[in-house]
Amino acid sequence: MSADVLIRKIKEMNNPTVAGLDPLVDYVPASMVKGDSLEAKAEAILNFNKGLIDALCDIVPAVKPQSAYYELLGWQGVKAFYETVAYAQSKGMYVIADAKRNDIGSTAGAYSKAFFDTLGSEALTVNGYLGYDGVEPFVRDGKMIFVLVKTSNPGSGQLQDLKLENGKTIYEQMGGYVEEWGAPSIGEYGYSNVGAVVGATHKAQLQELREKLPHTFFLIPGYGAQGGTAEDIAVGFVNGTGAIVNSSRGIMCAYKKQNLPAEKFAEAARNEAIRMRDEINSKIL
Amino acid sequence: MSADVLIRKIKEMNNPTVAGLDPLVDYVPASMVKGDSLEAKAEAILNFNKGLIDALCDIVPAVKPQSAYYELLGWQGVKAFYETVAYAQSKGMYVIADAKRNDIGSTAGAYSKAFFDTLGSEALTVNGYLGYDGVEPFVRDGKMIFVLVKTSNPGSGQLQDLKLENGKTIYEQMGGYVEEWGAPSIGEYGYSNVGAVVGATHKAQLQELREKLPHTFFLIPGYGAQGGTAEDIAVGFVNGTGAIVNSSRGIMCAYKKQNLPAEKFAEAARNEAIRMRDEINSKIL
Repeated sequence: MSADVLIRKIKEMNNPTVAGLDPLVDYVPASMVKGDSLEAKAEAILNFNKGLIDALCDIVPAVKPQSAYYELLGWQGVKAFYETVAYAQSKGMYVIADAKRNDIGSTAGAYSKAFFDTLGSEALTVNGYLGYDGVEPFVRDGKMIFVLVKTSNPGSGQLQDLKLENGKTIYEQMGGYVEEWGAPSIGEYGYSNVGAVVGATHKAQLQELREKLPHTFFLIPGYGAQGGTAEDIAVGFVNGTGAIVNSSRGIMCAYKKQNLPAEKFAEAARNEAIRMRDEINSKIL
Repeated sequence: MSADVLIRKIKEMNNPTVAGLDPLVDYVPASMVKGDSLEAKAEAILNFNKGLIDALCDIVPAVKPQSAYYELLGWQGVKAFYETVAYAQSKGMYVIADAKRNDIGSTAGAYSKAFFDTLGSEALTVNGYLGYDGVEPFVRDGKMIFVLVKTSNPGSGQLQDLKLENGKTIYEQMGGYVEEWGAPSIGEYGYSNVGAVVGATHKAQLQELREKLPHTFFLIPGYGAQGGTAEDIAVGFVNGTGAIVNSSRGIMCAYKKQNLPAEKFAEAARNEAIRMRDEINSKIL
């Protein structure tokens, strides 16, 4: 059961966080960028990622590369995405591909094979607007998905907070589906392979969903750069588990906050990852 | 205004259809597949696509490559996706990239640049579950998006048909947003740059949405292989315009239905494209 694999790694490292790898060339030290072509930029972000992975792999259980920032650099960027995933896995890290894929069943099946077989990531984020026949192809033994339930963006309420005739909000309804879709795959820690994305930036909804979805493991974005605090995310945990918290820019660009030169990005990222781990553990344990 | 560009092409060719390019290696004549590697498969589908584009470009205004089937073949497949788009454009075709992308604003901005700048497609399909701050980065002068409103899959009603407290269904609410998001970009034909995906397989909802969303251009999937008929899709049109109908497998695999050898795929696709055009025009004009 893949939720078990992730939870075991989190427990081993005593660290319920994931490092988001959403690199822009602007974040990379100028000395690492060897030209202006897509190839050169893709190589720069790949080497930046490798530096981050080397600095984090013994203290952070997982990485979450965001597909958009690689697609931005064309197929050359997608190649760097593949190489980033392989490198992280070679260092023992669990990989959550953040791509929010969604489509009708046959096409969702193609995406499922793309991410779980061709790429070989352990987990994938998925958008459930199409309903279960568009989600089911992603639900596989040994793999994990995180379905968007309540997203971290300021405007997520425009659709997700609307009330249904049955008295539930749309995010609550989606959360209920996620709990139901995951029921057959509940593992030894009590969580299923169908997780949920719930933003740190909406604390009340995070707390509500934590109570209503006892078997759903949460991927919590929005900590740090987006404004979510350790106190906010603490309500997404039960007995110190049940969620993993993402930080992307906070870790990738830690050198800026620490007033270090860009060349020290890896050291700064490690410092920030340790600080984040300890801060979050102090609130949830 | 990009909706104008598409509508003008449709009028010039008197053909409100788009050819979906969702190729599987299984569809390609064996003689065109030069090996088992991702590179060889990607090259095979690229050459298959070129054959289809050559056969269709003077009678069909647009192609809709589905990203999943290229991602399935790794970055090598994404390279073939790029080359397919460039080839279709070199033959004068309008390209709707079908990728159903969605994310929070900053990341949606990266996807927008990926598809509209790096790739350079004319249009993109988008999932609106995150709300307008996740859609707005895709709304650009000279580009068109199609937001998922009522999808063609059998289970689309699980979420989309639920009734809200305000009496509307979720798909109707999403459709209302689309009409609102498009209001600033209504062009000379009365349609905006923010279109909607509405499946041919749900005729009553297609008719309802056509009446309620007068400035929203529809991309209608689900004709043919998925079960939608020309009578079904006709309700998505007003005065012979307002929509474009997709056929993917029906065109790519037309040789099977016409009992032709796979090598005749291009000729068969052209025959089917003409048949589909004439059938649809006979119902909508």
